[in-house]
Amino acid sequence: MASPDPGGNGAHPALARWRARVDAALESALDGLEGTEPRLLSAMRHAVLLGGKRMRPLLTYATGVACGAAEDALDAPAAAVELMHAYSLVHDDLPAMDDDALRRGQPTVHVAYGEATAILAGDALQSLAFATLATAPAADAARVAMLAELATAGGAAGMCGGQALDLAATGAAIPLPALERLHAMKTGALLRAAVRLGAIAAGADAGARRALDTFAGALGLAFQVRDDLLDIEGDSATLGKTAGKDVAQDKATFPALIGADASRARLRELAAAMAQALQAVPGDTSVLAALARLAIERDR
Amino acid sequence: MASPDPGGNGAHPALARWRARVDAALESALDGLEGTEPRLLSAMRHAVLLGGKRMRPLLTYATGVACGAAEDALDAPAAAVELMHAYSLVHDDLPAMDDDALRRGQPTVHVAYGEATAILAGDALQSLAFATLATAPAADAARVAMLAELATAGGAAGMCGGQALDLAATGAAIPLPALERLHAMKTGALLRAAVRLGAIAAGADAGARRALDTFAGALGLAFQVRDDLLDIEGDSATLGKTAGKDVAQDKATFPALIGADASRARLRELAAAMAQALQAVPGDTSVLAALARLAIERDR
Repeated sequence: MASPDPGGNGAHPALARWRARVDAALESALDGLEGTEPRLLSAMRHAVLLGGKRMRPLLTYATGVACGAAEDALDAPAAAVELMHAYSLVHDDLPAMDDDALRRGQPTVHVAYGEATAILAGDALQSLAFATLATAPAADAARVAMLAELATAGGAAGMCGGQALDLAATGAAIPLPALERLHAMKTGALLRAAVRLGAIAAGADAGARRALDTFAGALGLAFQVRDDLLDIEGDSATLGKTAGKDVAQDKATFPALIGADASRARLRELAAAMAQALQAVPGDTSVLAALARLAIERDR
Repeated sequence: MASPDPGGNGAHPALARWRARVDAALESALDGLEGTEPRLLSAMRHAVLLGGKRMRPLLTYATGVACGAAEDALDAPAAAVELMHAYSLVHDDLPAMDDDALRRGQPTVHVAYGEATAILAGDALQSLAFATLATAPAADAARVAMLAELATAGGAAGMCGGQALDLAATGAAIPLPALERLHAMKTGALLRAAVRLGAIAAGADAGARRALDTFAGALGLAFQVRDDLLDIEGDSATLGKTAGKDVAQDKATFPALIGADASRARLRELAAAMAQALQAVPGDTSVLAALARLAIERDR
């Protein structure tokens, strides 16, 4: 059941604690690679440790704890999903892809380390995501289920497929359902996986999982609509990346397709859908509700 | 125990059957992605299905069967290891990496589909490798062990790290032990994983696994020494890739470092080491011996 967030601004006392937990888990995963080629490892650290919203791991913790998991059962899945996210950003930023020089206010990996190392760093981060999950302290059946979930969410039927649809859609007019499908795969699949990993780690029942899937679907879409709006409304300094990039690259976006006002209205509908879905989740869903607000109200 | 190969030329009747099995398993894994972005899927098929030696999956079958596994327990691990190999080739061929236009006698993926799609196809093939293994028909504990093995072999401590060492070594003189370590990671890690996956699927005991590790280590090195020799001795038409590339790119190779004659002598030593290691593996190791010969005597 959703309950109000005391801070009123999307912050929640658990979030800072979980950010510290996932940062420690990421640090530990990277420390396990000491002795490997230093430039590659440095590029991987650059990609992972320079900070970010950590939205995906926070969703894993918030879902897992709401469904009754202990926090330390969630460290590995939370880190794994962030490693997948980090690898995808490194590759998305490459010159052949979105060609972005700035990410989280820092030079992107290929700008700092060169393209070849950036490609390898992304590849190695993806492997590290699966290695982290494969050695998670969980029952074998849960580990296998989490690994299958992450592999499917990351692949051609999920994140990579969505990115391919995005490439194909650039410069082309596509209908709204196609744009929503694109983002359900490109951004949504990994956000949904973050939620599902938390649910699997907690052993959540089928009813809770269905409601969480609905929540995650709406969250993924809301996240992207907000991202598109920030690209036209935000400034590069706050965003930590280049604003106006989507327009410059003639990307298919929600504001371009249905206008900024209709995009904001869609965000409000999605917020309502998320709140409703959380009603069907047993346990304390207040942090999930706070994360939903963060996704919708964030300014970077 | 090694036994003579009836054909006398490294061929073995089981190899054609296993090639057909792994091709079917790969086809099936890709068929499971129907409905995803067609250009991406086509690029993935191009990378995987145009043929190749299938050395890694053959090692998985040969090891697994020698240790008592049924062939159908080996299809998923064999396909998974080949998917990892295929992804690595797509990324290695990229302009920012080895910049190769020809592979297995066909245009490389980025030449045929563009760089962005090639990057994504490689990424999605890596995910598919883990998805294939996560849904393999095996006990959960074996699946987790195989997933951990493949993730470690593919990552910064294995294949990606070896490729990074290779990038760092290009144009530089490196000592022989460093070159051997480079290849133990770049090529050797995945070959060893191919053997280990077969051993895990078969439930091989610790003694057999140790001997198989020794075998795989020698095989990986032999494979690379032969590769380096082919680059200076072979022609592009037979190789199906550009000959003389290593020299043109001033790559660290065994012939460049110790000369062609010493490289051939090293191959003979490695052949002896492999034969000796196989003495300690129970079961019929004749196909493993045949694969060892193939690795050493191949002309492409």
